Amino acid sequence: MSTFHARVLVHLRPSVLDPAGEATKAAANKLGIEGISMLRIGKVIDLEIKASSENDAKKRLELLSDRLLANPVIEDWTLELTQAHSL
Amino acid sequence: MSTFHARVLVHLRPSVLDPAGEATKAAANKLGIEGISMLRIGKVIDLEIKASSENDAKKRLELLSDRLLANPVIEDWTLELTQAHSL
Repeated sequence: MSTFHARVLVHLRPSVLDPAGEATKAAANKLGIEGISMLRIGKVIDLEIKASSENDAKKRLELLSDRLLANPVIEDWTLELTQAHSL
Repeated sequence: MSTFHARVLVHLRPSVLDPAGEATKAAANKLGIEGISMLRIGKVIDLEIKASSENDAKKRLELLSDRLLANPVIEDWTLELTQAHSL
């Protein structure tokens, strides 16, 4: 049994508007920070999962991302399994 | 002038409770996804900024992160300048 560290990045699909990101971009400009041509906000989920193999962990995390972490209608997700240590 | 791609990761400080993360962990268990021992949710901000140098871009993005993207009372942030291309 090993513990895997994983990071799931959830982003709005490129075709979906991001009002929070647009507001942040406008606020940055007002703050005097110039030159920002694009700004989009997503979610990052850091987690630890115990699994017998990397493949097993990956399978469960893909299910988790599809069913719980991202809304597949408007969001994409990417999974990074960062490291593991044995118990 | 170059365009820099940057990613800012905003996380709750370890001492701050994450009710949304705890709820997601519990929901994962109900969904039948076992073995998750830690789950915390943060924000990821992807942006493009035009700047004369990497140092210039970094300075502005640090100001942006401190003042706008993260709440320094409860959140930490990390900055990744991922790539650049000249205009």
